[in-house]
Amino acid sequence: MDLIHESLLKVKAFVFDVDGVMTDGSVIATEDGHFLRNFNIKDGYALQHAVKMGYPIAIISGGNSLGVIKRFQGLGITDVYVGQQHKEAAFMEFLGKHNLKAEEILYMGDDMPDYELMQKVGVASCPNDAALDIQQISAYISPKNGGHGCVRDILEKTLKLQKKWWSEHTHVW
Amino acid sequence: MDLIHESLLKVKAFVFDVDGVMTDGSVIATEDGHFLRNFNIKDGYALQHAVKMGYPIAIISGGNSLGVIKRFQGLGITDVYVGQQHKEAAFMEFLGKHNLKAEEILYMGDDMPDYELMQKVGVASCPNDAALDIQQISAYISPKNGGHGCVRDILEKTLKLQKKWWSEHTHVW
Amino acid sequence: MDLIHESLLKVKAFVFDVDGVMTDGSVIATEDGHFLRNFNIKDGYALQHAVKMGYPIAIISGGNSLGVIKRFQGLGITDVYVGQQHKEAAFMEFLGKHNLKAEEILYMGDDMPDYELMQKVGVASCPNDAALDIQQISAYISPKNGGHGCVRDILEKTLKLQKKWWSEHTHVW
Amino acid sequence: MDLIHESLLKVKAFVFDVDGVMTDGSVIATEDGHFLRNFNIKDGYALQHAVKMGYPIAIISGGNSLGVIKRFQGLGITDVYVGQQHKEAAFMEFLGKHNLKAEEILYMGDDMPDYELMQKVGVASCPNDAALDIQQISAYISPKNGGHGCVRDILEKTLKLQKKWWSEHTHVW
Repeated sequence: MDLIHESLLKVKAFVFDVDGVMTDGSVIATEDGHFLRNFNIKDGYALQHAVKMGYPIAIISGGNSLGVIKRFQGLGITDVYVGQQHKEAAFMEFLGKHNLKAEEILYMGDDMPDYELMQKVGVASCPNDAALDIQQISAYISPKNGGHGCVRDILEKTLKLQKKWWSEHTHVW
Repeated sequence: MDLIHESLLKVKAFVFDVDGVMTDGSVIATEDGHFLRNFNIKDGYALQHAVKMGYPIAIISGGNSLGVIKRFQGLGITDVYVGQQHKEAAFMEFLGKHNLKAEEILYMGDDMPDYELMQKVGVASCPNDAALDIQQISAYISPKNGGHGCVRDILEKTLKLQKKWWSEHTHVW
Repeated sequence: MDLIHESLLKVKAFVFDVDGVMTDGSVIATEDGHFLRNFNIKDGYALQHAVKMGYPIAIISGGNSLGVIKRFQGLGITDVYVGQQHKEAAFMEFLGKHNLKAEEILYMGDDMPDYELMQKVGVASCPNDAALDIQQISAYISPKNGGHGCVRDILEKTLKLQKKWWSEHTHVW
Repeated sequence: MDLIHESLLKVKAFVFDVDGVMTDGSVIATEDGHFLRNFNIKDGYALQHAVKMGYPIAIISGGNSLGVIKRFQGLGITDVYVGQQHKEAAFMEFLGKHNLKAEEILYMGDDMPDYELMQKVGVASCPNDAALDIQQISAYISPKNGGHGCVRDILEKTLKLQKKWWSEHTHVW
């Protein structure tokens, strides 16, 4: 078994950035100053399935958008932190709430605001098109780009290794 | 004649998933909690043409969106099932309504909620970028991705084999 | 000089389809039943420039959308025909209005509703990702896909050959 | 050190076109005649960081959209010029306001309306998918396309060379 598989077996919870991870990094500017984002439905399937299987999942984003909050609440995710200029505070609150240690966390991020937290967690991972400085500190670089299934990839990989992918929930959304 | 061609000759009706098949799997979250979806116009041409040529077509989606319903009604499709957590009930209703057997159906899906139905139909097919577990149970994997012409590909292929592609309707939308 | 260059030298006016030519073929369905379309800004530059240089340009679409009309009117195009189930009537009206013959027209289309008109015009052309039946009747297949610059490609190519690309209008939009 | 690196070391301010540089060149037409644009979040990170590090940045666009203005104001950019048929006037105003010379400017553009200004600045640069005539006058052609990180690429490259990329601001947005 290779090293990354051993690390993934120890993961108890997931933390995800939004832009460039859950999305392809594009934001659609509307005339009234809002930004629309493209989410990926296969990521969505894996997220709601992981929630049903009992994994704590946090979303921590610098951006602030009602659409983002509603997207993830609709998938059953309760720990959605938006408007976080520094991501550390939200991260610590999430750990405390679920009684988790940083080394039990898989974090997927794609750019400089994720840099510091990614050096503290058990498994640092990123999309294939993450900033180069982020790729250099990642234990796992997904073959998929942001918004094109990198979240699905890491969740499916981890849950299959932990025998939590197939269950009575698998064919239901 | 290869095996898939023989199977396609027996197809009497089509069932399609929406996200990842009719679309590229992206959903655009608006600030009021709706999701916008990207449909493909060449898929649309083939769908309305198949309807005119008399094929029963069902759309079965776990998602629930007025935009989805209106899109397919606008193409002349009458059997549009949305908000289906389990897809089996809608599938059985569609078979009964049109007096069809499961082995006469071509089903195109892309992810786990399609898994069970795809094992029951005559021809299981999927887009090129379907989940790997879905690709493994598909008799036909389209060279086209979801939202990029996989529906057009399978409809054009089937109708051409069945001599229903060219008609007085072909150059009219 | 190759054959297509000779043909392009004789072109006096342009007719374009919309979906799959001016766009990448995707339509974004909104909750209120409208469709939003993605247009290409480099196509837009070439269209407004060709108008300024005196070329008659017609847009003929089966679809019907206020957004489409406004897009092309904003570029100075006056002959915008939408909601055309058969495209022949609009085409004949355009010829009559500008005193043009079919053999003086370059037509760019991408799918079956364009098939009949493309067999009547001087130069039939299509995007790189046009339906195969359309590619087979095209004298010029652009290296660019629909919505990704195929319109710009054919306009720039034609106007450069006819010495109408560079002028006092070139650096102004 | 190669020639482009030497040129980038002398850059004191940046001027960017919008469509095709900050975006992939697509505009989404809404039914009420507006155009929505896709911006890139990694470009956004680099822009707000460059502002914090003290670089004057101008946005000069032929288009006119409230969404564009709000996007860049949200990143802290104060010199946003829209609706500029000729770009020269805005450019001169920007130089005067910040007491800059044309040879201290890096300009990134992608199409004919940028052609004249790009011949006057210190470093002319463009996205990988710029119009060919623009590529031919560019000292630096980014490996990234418009809307897919070309702005991030040139800003990160320049600021790293000038030792302004890493600072106490780097991990904060």
